[in-house]
Amino acid sequence: MTAQPLKIALAGLGTVGGGTVQLLHEQAALLAARAGRPLKLVACAALERPAELPLDGVPFHTDARVMAREADYDVLVELIGGAGGVALDVVGTALDKGRHVVTANKAMIAHHGVALAEKAEKSGAILGFEASVGGGIPIIKALREGLAGNRVGRVMGILNGTCNYILTTMRASGRDFADVLAEAQALGYAEADPSFDIDGIDTAHKLAILAALAFAAPVDIKAVACEGIRHVSALDIAYADELGYRIKLLGVAACGDAGMSIRVYPAMVPLAFPLAHVDGVFNAIVTEGDFVGRTVLEGRGAGARPTASAVVSDLMDIARGRATPTFGVPVGALAQRPAAPAGSCRSAFYIRLMVRDEPGVFADIAAALRDEKVSMEQVIQRGRAPAATVPVVMTVHETDEAAMLRAVDRIAALASIAEPPRLIRIEAL
Amino acid sequence: MTAQPLKIALAGLGTVGGGTVQLLHEQAALLAARAGRPLKLVACAALERPAELPLDGVPFHTDARVMAREADYDVLVELIGGAGGVALDVVGTALDKGRHVVTANKAMIAHHGVALAEKAEKSGAILGFEASVGGGIPIIKALREGLAGNRVGRVMGILNGTCNYILTTMRASGRDFADVLAEAQALGYAEADPSFDIDGIDTAHKLAILAALAFAAPVDIKAVACEGIRHVSALDIAYADELGYRIKLLGVAACGDAGMSIRVYPAMVPLAFPLAHVDGVFNAIVTEGDFVGRTVLEGRGAGARPTASAVVSDLMDIARGRATPTFGVPVGALAQRPAAPAGSCRSAFYIRLMVRDEPGVFADIAAALRDEKVSMEQVIQRGRAPAATVPVVMTVHETDEAAMLRAVDRIAALASIAEPPRLIRIEAL
Repeated sequence: MTAQPLKIALAGLGTVGGGTVQLLHEQAALLAARAGRPLKLVACAALERPAELPLDGVPFHTDARVMAREADYDVLVELIGGAGGVALDVVGTALDKGRHVVTANKAMIAHHGVALAEKAEKSGAILGFEASVGGGIPIIKALREGLAGNRVGRVMGILNGTCNYILTTMRASGRDFADVLAEAQALGYAEADPSFDIDGIDTAHKLAILAALAFAAPVDIKAVACEGIRHVSALDIAYADELGYRIKLLGVAACGDAGMSIRVYPAMVPLAFPLAHVDGVFNAIVTEGDFVGRTVLEGRGAGARPTASAVVSDLMDIARGRATPTFGVPVGALAQRPAAPAGSCRSAFYIRLMVRDEPGVFADIAAALRDEKVSMEQVIQRGRAPAATVPVVMTVHETDEAAMLRAVDRIAALASIAEPPRLIRIEAL
Repeated sequence: MTAQPLKIALAGLGTVGGGTVQLLHEQAALLAARAGRPLKLVACAALERPAELPLDGVPFHTDARVMAREADYDVLVELIGGAGGVALDVVGTALDKGRHVVTANKAMIAHHGVALAEKAEKSGAILGFEASVGGGIPIIKALREGLAGNRVGRVMGILNGTCNYILTTMRASGRDFADVLAEAQALGYAEADPSFDIDGIDTAHKLAILAALAFAAPVDIKAVACEGIRHVSALDIAYADELGYRIKLLGVAACGDAGMSIRVYPAMVPLAFPLAHVDGVFNAIVTEGDFVGRTVLEGRGAGARPTASAVVSDLMDIARGRATPTFGVPVGALAQRPAAPAGSCRSAFYIRLMVRDEPGVFADIAAALRDEKVSMEQVIQRGRAPAATVPVVMTVHETDEAAMLRAVDRIAALASIAEPPRLIRIEAL
């Protein structure tokens, strides 16, 4: 092989960085055969040099900024993480020098994607971020290239493995959220501060990126409405089972005549829908295109090796000279989409009320729904005992969200309602 | 936009050709924005000019060979079909002239893929065949680019929508194969001569292509062992349900220490496996890579619009100047993999025997299995009546296929076995 190697500088040697070093080392011959040139690690940076990685002969930096400025590389791989700080600095430095960048940093792309894409465009560099969404699933490539002939109406998915693990375990064990979260933390599947995952922020970052690609809109994390899984109870999961649903934390981005909506929320997913069967740490993304119809991509959403697979796919594209505009079109062609008016979305719903069983209460509930033209589908009530508090579960047909929220507010105010009502969207097929 | 248009000559205006014309017409502005240049249809060829397609001003040829030789185009799109004949001629002509080719023709790629890749390599042309496998699912791109960092051990899938529709309908209705096939033919879901689909030939073509990409081996249709779905009975489907499986026609290609095996067969798929839930005309492909783990890609496996989506994704790559070697590595780097010895594969099995209920018959069956070290897992026998013929269904734990076949041969020869035993593999997770 006489072709010039692709010179790689790697910033960050944590989980994903370590996996990437392993992949580049183990598959060196394979990668060279596929890329037509060797992929060569020429510099790396981390606070400490990890002894267990095959980094013999690779110059080591303790300051990634220095490496980004001074090393001689073709592509900088940023695996430090964090929306700003060192990560953003080294990526900016590389792009300004006309060096390609590959990153797994969804927070950075979600917050600074457009500015970074502009830098890349200006200097003729490629900015790859396949690893930022869905771990090893080649979803960025699919949206940007494989489905490039389609107008995408909706892209949605299970994008956070920690939440999906917690929800899957809650269902399998019947245990409640706090209990399963504590166990996940003990096992290392959830962070000590779990907010980033369980409040949906990580999903929001990833969804903002997918929405930008799907709709050719500037990536905008502030446009994402976000609700996490703290309030999902074992009781709701059991009712979901009984009704033929699974509760999943979804990111759902849609763009149509009513405008664009980008939302993260726990939803009831019908068993006939592919996402219902995506369990544990797996992720999956559904894309609806006007020609292709529905596609589903599923795989491991995190972890050293799957994420390294995604990082290396970007490196292979760069090694082969395969370029695409960062978000599928030049930055100048990204168009702000009007936001769908609040409450304009339509959905079916699951509602759980904790009701003190007093005469007339059901008539009041039914009247509130009727007055908002919300049409009931199913009702489950069991174990009535005079004056006791019992769950009343209803599902309603597709309705305006605004009407549903008004009806629930009115129901919540009834004297016989003992707890705030739980409202969970039922995702349409 | 000042960039030169990509000049497209389209051979074949049937279902997929018509869909491609529609897509290029409807999404012209979108495609130009994403490709950085217009995609322009400059010539088309078919036996008759279809009146309903938006082909105003596009020069029309009745002889695709003449068009391939004489028209001025950058890329020839071949949607005629058939392994040889006109399709192969026009593709050869275009590649020899250094013109790019995009095709949906799995039979041609399966039979002549290496020779065509050599032509493309010699003349510097790109040969795109995303549409040849899995309809709109971007599986070629995923294998060749998205998972390029992985050594793939196994790639398998549901690759034929007609078979999947028949099997799905058999299960839903409880009806038998011949009945459902006749209905599918009446509805236009199956051909008048259905052999190509139901005997697994179409699946074999597609699987041969996937295997070549996954294992960097020369595509070789003769290496595929092929069994179709004619023998799948309503009875076996009902037993599968009872045992927690779905029967699916799978293409399974594996490459490991024992060698490479490429096989098409109906299999029992456990409900926990993603492929179990892929119904109707949907296709899905599972890829197992050493870094990424398992990924699943699902979508519409056929039809005008999904297949056009795949054709256009290849055109977009060409418009952007994005090239990859045809089978992921240069032809010279494709390496023949030794075939796994016949019977060396291991699998769990489902066996259905039609047994005349005579004393001692079960002892004979059990002895045949024991002598071949085949270990039984479950047995279902019901409705015994002296001297009547009753089904006896067994599942056995993973075993050598050769041993299983020897045991079944011995069982088949027993006097009390009324029909040839039915043996169906149970696919491992």
